[in-house]
Amino acid sequence: MSNRRVSIRAVSPSVDGGRYPAKTSRGETIVVEADVFADSHDLIRAAVCWRRPGQRRWTEAPMRPLLNDRWRGEFVLDDLGRYEFRITGWIDRFGSWQRDTRKKLDAGVATDVDLAIGAELIDDVLGRATTEDADLLRALRDQLLDTSADADQRASAPLSPETGELVARNDERRFATASDRYPLRVDRERARFSTWYELFPRSTSPDPARSGTFDDVIDRLPYVQALGFDVLYLPPIHPIGKVHRKGRNNAVAAEAGDPGSPWAIGSDEGGHDAVHPELGTMDDFRRLVAACDDHGLELALDIAFQCAPDHPWVREHPEWFKKRPDGSIQYAENPPKKYQDIYPLDFETEDAEGLWNALKGVFDHWIAEGVRIFRVDNPHTKAFPFWEWCLNALLDEHPDLIFLSESFTRPKVMQELARIGFNQSYTYFAWKNAKWELEQYYAELFLTEVRDYFRPNSWPNTPDILTEFLQHGGRGAFVQKLVLAATLTANYGIYGPAFELMLHEARPGAEEYLDNEKYEVRHWDLDQPHSLAEMIRLVNRVRNENPALQQDRGFALHAIDNEQLFAYSKRDPQSGNTVLVVVNLDPQWKQAGTTWLDLGALGIERDDQPFTVHDRIGGARYTWHGRSNYVELDPNVSPAHVFVVEPHPA
Amino acid sequence: MSNRRVSIRAVSPSVDGGRYPAKTSRGETIVVEADVFADSHDLIRAAVCWRRPGQRRWTEAPMRPLLNDRWRGEFVLDDLGRYEFRITGWIDRFGSWQRDTRKKLDAGVATDVDLAIGAELIDDVLGRATTEDADLLRALRDQLLDTSADADQRASAPLSPETGELVARNDERRFATASDRYPLRVDRERARFSTWYELFPRSTSPDPARSGTFDDVIDRLPYVQALGFDVLYLPPIHPIGKVHRKGRNNAVAAEAGDPGSPWAIGSDEGGHDAVHPELGTMDDFRRLVAACDDHGLELALDIAFQCAPDHPWVREHPEWFKKRPDGSIQYAENPPKKYQDIYPLDFETEDAEGLWNALKGVFDHWIAEGVRIFRVDNPHTKAFPFWEWCLNALLDEHPDLIFLSESFTRPKVMQELARIGFNQSYTYFAWKNAKWELEQYYAELFLTEVRDYFRPNSWPNTPDILTEFLQHGGRGAFVQKLVLAATLTANYGIYGPAFELMLHEARPGAEEYLDNEKYEVRHWDLDQPHSLAEMIRLVNRVRNENPALQQDRGFALHAIDNEQLFAYSKRDPQSGNTVLVVVNLDPQWKQAGTTWLDLGALGIERDDQPFTVHDRIGGARYTWHGRSNYVELDPNVSPAHVFVVEPHPA
Repeated sequence: MSNRRVSIRAVSPSVDGGRYPAKTSRGETIVVEADVFADSHDLIRAAVCWRRPGQRRWTEAPMRPLLNDRWRGEFVLDDLGRYEFRITGWIDRFGSWQRDTRKKLDAGVATDVDLAIGAELIDDVLGRATTEDADLLRALRDQLLDTSADADQRASAPLSPETGELVARNDERRFATASDRYPLRVDRERARFSTWYELFPRSTSPDPARSGTFDDVIDRLPYVQALGFDVLYLPPIHPIGKVHRKGRNNAVAAEAGDPGSPWAIGSDEGGHDAVHPELGTMDDFRRLVAACDDHGLELALDIAFQCAPDHPWVREHPEWFKKRPDGSIQYAENPPKKYQDIYPLDFETEDAEGLWNALKGVFDHWIAEGVRIFRVDNPHTKAFPFWEWCLNALLDEHPDLIFLSESFTRPKVMQELARIGFNQSYTYFAWKNAKWELEQYYAELFLTEVRDYFRPNSWPNTPDILTEFLQHGGRGAFVQKLVLAATLTANYGIYGPAFELMLHEARPGAEEYLDNEKYEVRHWDLDQPHSLAEMIRLVNRVRNENPALQQDRGFALHAIDNEQLFAYSKRDPQSGNTVLVVVNLDPQWKQAGTTWLDLGALGIERDDQPFTVHDRIGGARYTWHGRSNYVELDPNVSPAHVFVVEPHPA
Repeated sequence: MSNRRVSIRAVSPSVDGGRYPAKTSRGETIVVEADVFADSHDLIRAAVCWRRPGQRRWTEAPMRPLLNDRWRGEFVLDDLGRYEFRITGWIDRFGSWQRDTRKKLDAGVATDVDLAIGAELIDDVLGRATTEDADLLRALRDQLLDTSADADQRASAPLSPETGELVARNDERRFATASDRYPLRVDRERARFSTWYELFPRSTSPDPARSGTFDDVIDRLPYVQALGFDVLYLPPIHPIGKVHRKGRNNAVAAEAGDPGSPWAIGSDEGGHDAVHPELGTMDDFRRLVAACDDHGLELALDIAFQCAPDHPWVREHPEWFKKRPDGSIQYAENPPKKYQDIYPLDFETEDAEGLWNALKGVFDHWIAEGVRIFRVDNPHTKAFPFWEWCLNALLDEHPDLIFLSESFTRPKVMQELARIGFNQSYTYFAWKNAKWELEQYYAELFLTEVRDYFRPNSWPNTPDILTEFLQHGGRGAFVQKLVLAATLTANYGIYGPAFELMLHEARPGAEEYLDNEKYEVRHWDLDQPHSLAEMIRLVNRVRNENPALQQDRGFALHAIDNEQLFAYSKRDPQSGNTVLVVVNLDPQWKQAGTTWLDLGALGIERDDQPFTVHDRIGGARYTWHGRSNYVELDPNVSPAHVFVVEPHPA
């Protein structure tokens, strides 16, 4: 028979009812909410409490009521790894007495007995009070019982908010309710805010006569750093299969000299823990890792768990692959297409333990070489329980790791990979072009419970993705997609130099680059006058200067009366820094419209409060008033305003 | 290291993550949904399984995929009480092989090895097959391996859907995933569909010189039955406190002869297990219970857990009440108002066990007297853990009980009472007058997870509630509210004869009847020409004839271009019976508009498929086509169409 009169429901963040940790990052404000309420009309109090799993003591912060029995509390964690939180709620007897007695005094019906009840409640907490508090409490109690004074006088100090807090901090919280515990994982800052640049090392050679090496990549680092990126991501760097190797433009058979796809991993030169001899040695690789660090960059490796037919594992562990009735190993298929250069791993193998440990061993190997960020290729074609085990084991050992899920499949599957452990996820961003699509998609990512575990990383292009929009949209399309990627999500990246050089010719019939670097070595002239390098540098500078763009909370959509104009804002809950973006989705023609702003989301308190919007792309400043403001964007000048919002003093 | 490749998420119905049972009723279709998906591209299958808690074996029904990895399964339970369900999902290896092999055959690239894989999969299930199935399976396998025939011939029977089902029913479901278990409670039909009539027994006397008795109520039963009601609900029938008794029109002090409020329970004549001597004896009460049964009615009692100062418990169990510092018992308050005629029970008493058992004992007492339906007064002023314990204990002993929560407080508290056990709940219906309010409220009740545990019971009036709308709206307002209550929710009731006689004079300053029966005995002339009895009889007949109105699933809102016209439909998932209601919310003036119907919700498959709408209020039939149809409603004729929708053959 429980006397716990307070109920706690609908706790947020809660990923699958608390089965999985909500994601947060070091220094980020963690906002916890719940429905907290009791029977009858007593006032209640609530607090959010947190600790490391296994710790005995909780730390707590008070929660405050919002509307409709919803309560909110906030805290910040400064260490990486796992935490758990819970909510407690209890009846605020003294606060309820204060409220009721105030009403009775105002109506002139308070009696000695009413005041004596307050004195009893103070007596109840005296035993737990510090000496200092106890002295104060005793004086207040005696004042309530002093029948020589009039009721208003006797009650005035006891009814103050200060007395309310004094009693509350000594309250035994009798019959307090504690919610279930909900897990959290604290990642480092870069899991929340990162700017990626992808390049093919073999295409970095300044000499068209040879393919690039790790040393050539080192020479490219100042360029990447100057553009404002902080993660340099390389496609797989391992030996490339020689059996059934693919040729240029995805030809079924390679010609002599064709280098093959870096994703067809493994040959007699080694497997997932080796580097391709043409790129250099492990020592060269280590120098690259160190050089990245010198340039404010962090190296991210691509981990693709699949094997070329000549990968060492095929010979050493044939039991990790599916066998066909004729004894041959099952190659990859998407019927009727066959990928005879790729053997998928069989996650239903009898030797799951051996396979899982070997795969985790690949990460262990590169972690030991100083790599902390991994882009994982097609994780949705490997079993979920493997990822849950592998990522959690690795993150528990190394809580500074970051895993980006490269999965472009059905939404529930992409969400599942994030739920069970991936820190960041690719998204459908590249294909979202219409205003309604963008509004719907970012509302789902940022304004539903998906935000508690799915960190979107937006890419306008990848070696696999050259959308029709970029193929045909011209410079306006490239700049638009750059601004959207860089300001919608705190994590974004581009595949270069294809992006900044605005490569847009597709292999016929495919949404993919002609003469794709996946199948051949390319050489690039980075100094072309049409390069977007300066624009990228500017956009990345705006990101680095505005905390609002370094996190994914405080997102809001704003109405604007033109279907080609898309408006949204982000607001950093800690600093209040607010960025309002208006993008012309039409890559060709000028568009104009009038906003109907959600002023509250911009931190504007009153409808008539003027505010400055400072366009960090075009440079102009405007003074705006109220919800309706005129916007005009010509994609030939700039397809977007990225406004920093500055309210004038109220 | 788990090989369970299928994930199951977002299971519905799930009340607070499965902590509380979802509510259903005998014979009702239980619709279970979940996100079910696996890695990679294999096909999967899923089933919903159910059993009594503690049983070992599950019964199961197949689930089918909807859109976006959502799966649905359905079943019906024919016995009352607790059940639990779970979902299982597994890889459909043979189905995946069928799909892939079909593609390869179509492309002309299927090989002997591809067909041999199918033969292996058949071999895998042979050991579990019945003799009959095994014979069929062996023939299919041999056909696949018969290299003398061509591939299309060999594969034609093995690729058929029938073979798919044959293999599936013998499949071992290797590495199947089972979800958590989710509880269900099966109530009887009347918990889902009931029509209530409330009256004050003491006001049923045909003789103005005396107050009514149980025998007078018996004489009133044919009238109530003829109106089409099936639950007769009586305010508290217990002895009424004499100390601090309230007078007529809520006067603080009763005059001599004033009968007092039935909710001020208990006197020297007895407490919650006694009947007021003026109403009759326990034997009279038992005859009333039996007479109700003879008239197709079921008696519902009002249980109000509070005590008049002269209730026997105050003397026998002073520890169940809160004491004030001066030793007196704390009366009810809503500061600065005082209710000295009512002592609330203290759910934080040291003798919680004694109090809880005594309260449960009140139900036990009346259950033993044949009562199965209880309307519980202000349950939100008693502790939630008490209700959870009490209602669950009672429902486990008597799964045919029905408890209606009379709580008009904050939404989260009303929902909590339903979540922890109440079978039906009063709602804000009486105060929802504008179209936007109605749309928002019924979308919340019927189209969110609230529907899984909260069964609304709509009342246009109660002895406590005479809304401004009814005070001033005239006959149009009464009929409108009647139709809305009776067709929005499968459970509804009226407080009569105040409702059918259209009483609308309020006590000044109160949203309550003048000369309220709560405080005095009234005598009614039921045969007044303006009585709504005929309209009530018609509306209840329409309910009884249309299964769509006997349950709360299949609810849809329909657009109509007039803010005074409100359109919605309900569709019975079993029979397909569909009712479309259009109500003129303006009680005075004629309103017209054009619908924009959600045809799918009406069971109309094609946009151009004609359908008949038969107005069961006005009697007219119209043939409609498509979404747009003209509607005109004059409240002086009828404020509503209640259309039965009959699609013409497609």
